[in-house]
Amino acid sequence: MQLLKDRIVRDGRVLPGNILKVGSFLNHQMDIGLFNDIGKEFARLFASVPVTRILTIEASGIGIACITAQYFNVPVVFAKKSKTKNISGDTLVTSVKSFTHNLTYDVMVSREFIRPGDSVLIIDDFLANGCALEGLVRLVESAGAKVAGAGIVIEKGFQDGGARLRERGIKIESLAIIDSMRGDGDITFRDN
Amino acid sequence: MQLLKDRIVRDGRVLPGNILKVGSFLNHQMDIGLFNDIGKEFARLFASVPVTRILTIEASGIGIACITAQYFNVPVVFAKKSKTKNISGDTLVTSVKSFTHNLTYDVMVSREFIRPGDSVLIIDDFLANGCALEGLVRLVESAGAKVAGAGIVIEKGFQDGGARLRERGIKIESLAIIDSMRGDGDITFRDN
Repeated sequence: MQLLKDRIVRDGRVLPGNILKVGSFLNHQMDIGLFNDIGKEFARLFASVPVTRILTIEASGIGIACITAQYFNVPVVFAKKSKTKNISGDTLVTSVKSFTHNLTYDVMVSREFIRPGDSVLIIDDFLANGCALEGLVRLVESAGAKVAGAGIVIEKGFQDGGARLRERGIKIESLAIIDSMRGDGDITFRDN
Repeated sequence: MQLLKDRIVRDGRVLPGNILKVGSFLNHQMDIGLFNDIGKEFARLFASVPVTRILTIEASGIGIACITAQYFNVPVVFAKKSKTKNISGDTLVTSVKSFTHNLTYDVMVSREFIRPGDSVLIIDDFLANGCALEGLVRLVESAGAKVAGAGIVIEKGFQDGGARLRERGIKIESLAIIDSMRGDGDITFRDN
């Protein structure tokens, strides 16, 4: 998605440790016009796949998922990262390792919101080592539902999550795949 | 907002401790059609107020804020609840006490996304004791910006946050104010 790649080059900042800061438009401040373009592109890419629900993970996936859902006419469910008093009863839980924060946390979804027979499109802002996405896939499968695919805004193609999950047969559509990036702002995108 | 009140009565569940579960449509699974009705209503209620930015707090405010932003044509910023590696430099921080989770946490926003001269509409799903909203007001004021008002989906009118913040002159518009609720599903709304 050229518009997104141009925006990453213009407003993204590369920090040491292969961190790409896109907080000015994607995951701290959010450009809702851009999110609508992203949602339309996901709708185009997943037009041939049945989608009954969109699943994302708090916090930065939620805005993209909600705007995208307008093009699918389905509800959004977001997986929560810690046990709260407001989730009770029959909850699906899995553990996810975060390399960014160097910890393991539980991710949970109420079983009533992902049903057997659902075809679930997973939406997230980033895909890097793939641990969060794998966790969401496990949640969907443990509910007896199907993964329709995963729509990712930015994939770090130099980390192995995307390749590993595509090998498992999951349809992953990333709107910008970064093959390399350097602190001087030189970002190389994969042609896709 | 009658549509919302009807939905709360139909799908909400009252749990011990004055907890109202609305996870089937508001803050776990999200009904995007309803969110659009909510966004339109906020746009109507704040039509006379300049709004340059919408501020919310992770996680459950984000979806409502993003859909609402489509009716204001402004960016959304969400305040983060814990220090992450992706926030650096000049960050506005305040402490907020959570009665739900019985802890105090830091709330932060990058200073570059709330500017002096901004007129900030705060959007959140719930208002009860008002600690989270007060924290967001402090963040806006510490940035040298103005609070345009606060758009709340559900206010627990039997807790004092709304009254306390309105006394300070903040324009708070809550789409449903609950004056009392009982475990048998009997919910009394304030006429507003």
